Amino acid sequence: MQNSNRELLIQRGLELLTERGLAATGLAPLLKDVGIPKGSFYYYFESKDEFGYALLERYADFMNYKLDKYLLDNDYSVLDRIHHFIDSAARGMSKYEFKRGCLVGNLNQEVTLLPTKFKPKIESIFATWEQKISNCLRIGKETGEITTAVNCDDLAQFFWIGWEGAVQRSRLTLSREPLDIFFIFFKTVVQE
Amino acid sequence: MQNSNRELLIQRGLELLTERGLAATGLAPLLKDVGIPKGSFYYYFESKDEFGYALLERYADFMNYKLDKYLLDNDYSVLDRIHHFIDSAARGMSKYEFKRGCLVGNLNQEVTLLPTKFKPKIESIFATWEQKISNCLRIGKETGEITTAVNCDDLAQFFWIGWEGAVQRSRLTLSREPLDIFFIFFKTVVQE
Repeated sequence: MQNSNRELLIQRGLELLTERGLAATGLAPLLKDVGIPKGSFYYYFESKDEFGYALLERYADFMNYKLDKYLLDNDYSVLDRIHHFIDSAARGMSKYEFKRGCLVGNLNQEVTLLPTKFKPKIESIFATWEQKISNCLRIGKETGEITTAVNCDDLAQFFWIGWEGAVQRSRLTLSREPLDIFFIFFKTVVQE
Repeated sequence: MQNSNRELLIQRGLELLTERGLAATGLAPLLKDVGIPKGSFYYYFESKDEFGYALLERYADFMNYKLDKYLLDNDYSVLDRIHHFIDSAARGMSKYEFKRGCLVGNLNQEVTLLPTKFKPKIESIFATWEQKISNCLRIGKETGEITTAVNCDDLAQFFWIGWEGAVQRSRLTLSREPLDIFFIFFKTVVQE
């Protein structure tokens, strides 16, 4: 029961932080939504910031699972794998009318206001994601799908830079078009 | 004197909103910083949201001026012009230790929480910026500097998607590297 309360808080927290980040998320309305008293919240989390940090970790786990699911699927070419990841993210955003974006990107935006431990955590999450894309691109180089002219690590950094920009823009246009435009040009770069 | 108070509020507001957006900016500390009483604030602005809207307009004017300055400078090739804009933005970010980003990107992030009139305003600002990059790229097509294979409007949309992602990431890495990596791959696309 206590664990399920913690999980309720995490789930509602993920919904709110992907939509609005931490600063704009009020603890009181969140607790009201899930029907959990303030005292119970502080039983699970030391502070709102610690709660945000736990959400960041959970979100990173979720994304790592999703990235591995698509990027390690060797039934497909590497560009198809990346496209499947993008398509899955686009369908996920569409399901919530493009209100929810990337929790890591949202907290990146607020990083100057957050406790100092958030910055290395966000950097390490991006480093892990970059590694996953980079490994995928390296396979593509071996199979000849990706030009050998590019540095896979730089290209992976470029991928996540563009991806975060595209997710943010999709939340404005309320459409997947920015994600698709980003992928079209990303493909141009890797196939150059 | 009244006008200079309004201008003081605008200038301090621009500093804070480029760093943290609107939701996380407290009116009370801002007013304390500039030594202006609350009553005077409401003489100039109906609400905090209206203040944010005025800042958005002012920031857009500033960026339009900057973009025209660099992108219309026909002493240089179009890729050099774009590079000069990026370099100027990178130096501006460096000056404030990469704490300040793009006010439009920051408010884009918060768009679901803002009054409805912000969304079309932000969209129209991006449309103007896209037009400026697109016009510049079209000149590059004529001079042969840019491949004729790309659609300038799509490419301009891609530019601002990637740009916002790069600015956000620079605020994390506290370096201009993400801006430079973005430009390296952007060049690859246009010269393909």
